[in-house]
Amino acid sequence: KNITVSSPAELKQAVQKAIPGDTVFLENKEWKDAKLVVEGKGTATKPIVIVPRSIGKVIITGQSYLKIAGEYLVIKGLHFKDGYTPEKDLIVFRVNNDRLANNCRLTECVIDEFNNPERFRNENWIVLWGKNNRVDHNTFINKLTASPVLIAELNDERSQDNNHSVDHNYFKGRQRFGSNGGETIRIGVSRYSLTPSRTQIVDNYFEHCNGEVEIVSIKSGENNISRNTFFECEGGLVLRHGLGNVVNGNLFIGNNKPFTGGVRIVNPGHRVTNNVFLELKGTAFRSPLSIMNGVPNSLINRYYQVVDAKIENNTFVNCTPLTFGAGKDAERTLSPQRVTFQKNLFVNASDPVYQDDNNDGGVIVSNNAIDKSAVSREGFTQVKITNTVKNGITVPQAKNYGADLKQLAFITVNQAGAKWYNTNQQIAKNKNTTTYIKASDTKKIQELINKTHAGDTIILAEDGFYKLEEGLIINKPLVIMAAKHLNKKPVFVNASFKTIPAFITIENGGSLEIKNIAFQGAFESYGNVQAGIRSTDKAMNRHYNLTVDGCEFYDYNESSFAGIKASKNTLADSLVIKNSLFRNISGTAVNVAEEKDDRGAYGAEYTIITNTVFTNVMGSAVNVYRGGNDESTLGPFVTIDHCTFNEIENREQGTVVRLVGVQYAAITNSNFAYSGQGGRAIEFREFRWDEILVDYC
Amino acid sequence: KNITVSSPAELKQAVQKAIPGDTVFLENKEWKDAKLVVEGKGTATKPIVIVPRSIGKVIITGQSYLKIAGEYLVIKGLHFKDGYTPEKDLIVFRVNNDRLANNCRLTECVIDEFNNPERFRNENWIVLWGKNNRVDHNTFINKLTASPVLIAELNDERSQDNNHSVDHNYFKGRQRFGSNGGETIRIGVSRYSLTPSRTQIVDNYFEHCNGEVEIVSIKSGENNISRNTFFECEGGLVLRHGLGNVVNGNLFIGNNKPFTGGVRIVNPGHRVTNNVFLELKGTAFRSPLSIMNGVPNSLINRYYQVVDAKIENNTFVNCTPLTFGAGKDAERTLSPQRVTFQKNLFVNASDPVYQDDNNDGGVIVSNNAIDKSAVSREGFTQVKITNTVKNGITVPQAKNYGADLKQLAFITVNQAGAKWYNTNQQIAKNKNTTTYIKASDTKKIQELINKTHAGDTIILAEDGFYKLEEGLIINKPLVIMAAKHLNKKPVFVNASFKTIPAFITIENGGSLEIKNIAFQGAFESYGNVQAGIRSTDKAMNRHYNLTVDGCEFYDYNESSFAGIKASKNTLADSLVIKNSLFRNISGTAVNVAEEKDDRGAYGAEYTIITNTVFTNVMGSAVNVYRGGNDESTLGPFVTIDHCTFNEIENREQGTVVRLVGVQYAAITNSNFAYSGQGGRAIEFREFRWDEILVDYC
Ligand SMILES: [Ca+2]
Ligand SMILES: [Ca+2]
Repeated sequence: KNITVSSPAELKQAVQKAIPGDTVFLENKEWKDAKLVVEGKGTATKPIVIVPRSIGKVIITGQSYLKIAGEYLVIKGLHFKDGYTPEKDLIVFRVNNDRLANNCRLTECVIDEFNNPERFRNENWIVLWGKNNRVDHNTFINKLTASPVLIAELNDERSQDNNHSVDHNYFKGRQRFGSNGGETIRIGVSRYSLTPSRTQIVDNYFEHCNGEVEIVSIKSGENNISRNTFFECEGGLVLRHGLGNVVNGNLFIGNNKPFTGGVRIVNPGHRVTNNVFLELKGTAFRSPLSIMNGVPNSLINRYYQVVDAKIENNTFVNCTPLTFGAGKDAERTLSPQRVTFQKNLFVNASDPVYQDDNNDGGVIVSNNAIDKSAVSREGFTQVKITNTVKNGITVPQAKNYGADLKQLAFITVNQAGAKWYNTNQQIAKNKNTTTYIKASDTKKIQELINKTHAGDTIILAEDGFYKLEEGLIINKPLVIMAAKHLNKKPVFVNASFKTIPAFITIENGGSLEIKNIAFQGAFESYGNVQAGIRSTDKAMNRHYNLTVDGCEFYDYNESSFAGIKASKNTLADSLVIKNSLFRNISGTAVNVAEEKDDRGAYGAEYTIITNTVFTNVMGSAVNVYRGGNDESTLGPFVTIDHCTFNEIENREQGTVVRLVGVQYAAITNSNFAYSGQGGRAIEFREFRWDEILVDYC
Repeated sequence: KNITVSSPAELKQAVQKAIPGDTVFLENKEWKDAKLVVEGKGTATKPIVIVPRSIGKVIITGQSYLKIAGEYLVIKGLHFKDGYTPEKDLIVFRVNNDRLANNCRLTECVIDEFNNPERFRNENWIVLWGKNNRVDHNTFINKLTASPVLIAELNDERSQDNNHSVDHNYFKGRQRFGSNGGETIRIGVSRYSLTPSRTQIVDNYFEHCNGEVEIVSIKSGENNISRNTFFECEGGLVLRHGLGNVVNGNLFIGNNKPFTGGVRIVNPGHRVTNNVFLELKGTAFRSPLSIMNGVPNSLINRYYQVVDAKIENNTFVNCTPLTFGAGKDAERTLSPQRVTFQKNLFVNASDPVYQDDNNDGGVIVSNNAIDKSAVSREGFTQVKITNTVKNGITVPQAKNYGADLKQLAFITVNQAGAKWYNTNQQIAKNKNTTTYIKASDTKKIQELINKTHAGDTIILAEDGFYKLEEGLIINKPLVIMAAKHLNKKPVFVNASFKTIPAFITIENGGSLEIKNIAFQGAFESYGNVQAGIRSTDKAMNRHYNLTVDGCEFYDYNESSFAGIKASKNTLADSLVIKNSLFRNISGTAVNVAEEKDDRGAYGAEYTIITNTVFTNVMGSAVNVYRGGNDESTLGPFVTIDHCTFNEIENREQGTVVRLVGVQYAAITNSNFAYSGQGGRAIEFREFRWDEILVDYC
């Protein structure tokens, strides 16, 4: 029996009444704010199928979700875009704690940027409960928010030993999340990690999944992660908790991109075999292969010791060194034990091939091979290499060593995801325009901004005061600059009696390049301006770029004010300041320290300040903060070069340049005068693995 | 002409239409959600009077405010209670930026705990704009929120040189605010502080104004602060910015209470004369008299140098030493200069009488006197003392030295405030009850809590599991304890599938003493509990007390979880933990570190932990955080005695006991084992004026 439904209520009723073998068609249309609940009972041979009248013609938008419960339901071909779930989950395999889904299937669906506008809102696109469910041939594009794309939960026996299959999906894009919570897949959770999950993650294609250090985070036992392709992902497949997982026949393609990772191992009993690692350039936790040290008496969510692992018959081509004893420190003191590392093949190997931070024989490296052209190394046989090409990918091979390529699937984009969906749609690009604006037209600037297109340029045509009465809002990439050949800079001032949070606020989707303009924070007896340029305090899930060139920021009279401020819950991809001046500021000149929750989040991936003068600043000149012990992210990165610091933050315990938790920092060729007299010129608070350079200061 | 009005609209219209000499009566009743705007034009001899039909019978409640504009309006006898302003100000002397009040008067009004439920919400009870306005004979009781009770603003010339009078008011109570923003009066603001205000603050009575280090904060010039009484106030009259202020004939009564302060001086040209300081025990910024050091090239909101000050004919009786050069550090390097300190009288003086941290002769101490019974001191003449008693207050006198008592008003409670209002109403007290509750009645505990009265006791009658399905909410002072003579502790667990934020949450108005109960964070496969006991994440403006005795907290499995957690925007007066155990916690055992904004706020005034064992905690055992450079508050105070720390926070850079910005700390008689191996056992980050003791650890 076939039936076509056109509302969530009809759908619910139709599925409830359906008998095995029925198909419920969703009417072709936009389903807005669709709270879909499907609960029914098919059979293995006669499932109930829920499908659009025409694949690709049911588009689910707005505040929508899908809850599935019952047996043998197949949900196929739904397309989620332009919205987000009003709840914690988008597609969830249970209706409530009592009614789970078993033997259900989600296939050929597409979730395309269905993101909550708040980046730190925990939302999951797919959550598996129950047993024997399958998620296959779906396409997941650019999840921007916290929490994984897909989770399998196993809180009690109804969902443990579940035998789910996650296969042939296309995980396309996950931008650097800038905090823990940027995983693509999580299976289980530490509290229940000692029980087996037996989930299959096979034949999937992961592309640019750069959310954090864990692309796939396994937190349960006896899962099988095999035959997947990881394409240029800044992270790894991580066996984080749980026992006896199998990682076999996966293909990691790094293309020499920095930070591309492989497999990381924690806990006992795992097997990593027949995987191919091509041109991976990650180090430490992102090494092509890393084996962690454990913690004595570890709590369930910390690090159990690695014992009885087998790492055999893998192929590493042109990779950075492997890391044995990763994360070793005063807490993680238990070295891996009884780990056999053999029959692996290294081609164009790094020197050393691996680094063992314990060197106590816990990792038994024996009978591995290296290509003949390499310098010979102890414990490695030199062997002859031949190349095999499959699906356009070239993989070296050698007899008896390295991966058995028959166990690989060489999954490409074309073999994963919903085939009906074209993920490479082009957006027509406007020709960029340039508009000049006079000081007397200051009130029209916002209107002009609203009318312009991404990439357009607005030019302040005159010097003198541009008298704003509201802060400007930027929500697309724009250039704002002074006209060339002016004698003085145009000066933004507030000519209203209100306090204005910033002259310019960058909102979601915005980016800004700004040149040769001054931002005067206090003007006559008008209201204060709290910052020159800031990112929004509203919801944001996209990263922004800000380039400030030849600008001046002065007269900010309260200690909460700043020249430039990266607001909480926003992340700049890059914050570039050059040839600029900050003076007479009671707060912080460049404030990238609003992520105070010590959860490892931060305000800018790259902060780059060059040729800039800071003078008479009561707070810090530069404050970048990333608090807590989290080890998920790459950044923040900070570069300060050719800057001058004069009369900055002389208060007790004050710091001129404060870089807390910055992971890569370089401060070079800079002058510090009459600054930091009550505290420090530069404060680092860093971990031993951070990279810090101070030179010529 | 007299008219009676009964709504805000009628009032507005009546005042608009009134002619000089008219009286507008407010109908006797509760005026709820009353947005009152009065704008009219009286004359000096014939003002327009706005007054209740019967004084004391108009009660303004709910979301209410009063805006005043025009000339010669007298507003009299209003009573604000049980509500708060929906805007930033409650009573404001302007309708908008164009329409100010001049020559208007607010008299005999009462504002009794008219507080926003959110403590950090900036709200002002009285804001003066314009000129020649008078605020007199009003009573202001217990402002609990951020920002002063009364402000005079002087943003432009219409409000500068204003000649306002703030006189005969009764400022009754301002609890320790636990952050900057707890002032009682502020005159001006740093940005406009170099202009004269000429406000009179005279004949007022300040009682227990303990909000912060500044009771009265003068941030403008040429004000007159005279003949006021300060009764047991933990703070001072502070000449913070501005030039040439006069402090004359004030009476400070400390009654030997700790932290009671006097006058603090910054900026040039002030005169402090004929004041009497009785039994003040404050030190540093709260000294009976302190003269600050200045900052070179100071920004407008930092510290200008003190020069050309006159401090003469003051009387100090049984006080702590005065401080000259207060706040001297690497930044505040400019000593006071050309300050004459003479003809002052000291009775029962401290030794030394004063401490000069610069000792460069900038403060010229000459021709002062000391009582005959004292040891003679250089620069002090010994003189004969007689006692004068006025209004029940005994003040010593000597010829030619000390205060001229005729210049004092000896203001008492009876001479200030709205006479018609009795501020000492008693609340009838219930007889306290004790109720026993069985494990099988766990679901009824919340209902029972709701029915009990302040001070009642609830006893868990059995050992074994008390299975909660919601966290308990405490919004009054209660005792919860295990029955005596049980073999084991009763154990709270979560038996719902939801995650619960805490077993017990203390809300506004609540306090808790809890004894001999266990809090198990994870139970079977039910939902997690994020904390054993916490303060609310909802609005709170009253401080709470929590005493935990003989309790156990264990099995909290996520790193964001805690045994006990003081939430952001709440302040414990005291947090006492004794004879207790914390084990198996992935987060922080005792978390008083949620005020992360570096504005000088903190979560508990006193944290006292004794005879308590911490074992196997992944985060810190104790984390108390107060960030930033603010110098407004007394606390936090931390005492840790006879505690054991075993296997605590061994992570890289981790700290077992983390006390950042704690102002008084003592850690004694405690054991640290296998703890802090990647970082530190104890981390202090303190200022040079903090008091720290670590002993027998
Ligand atoms: Ca993670
Ligand atoms: Ca203050």
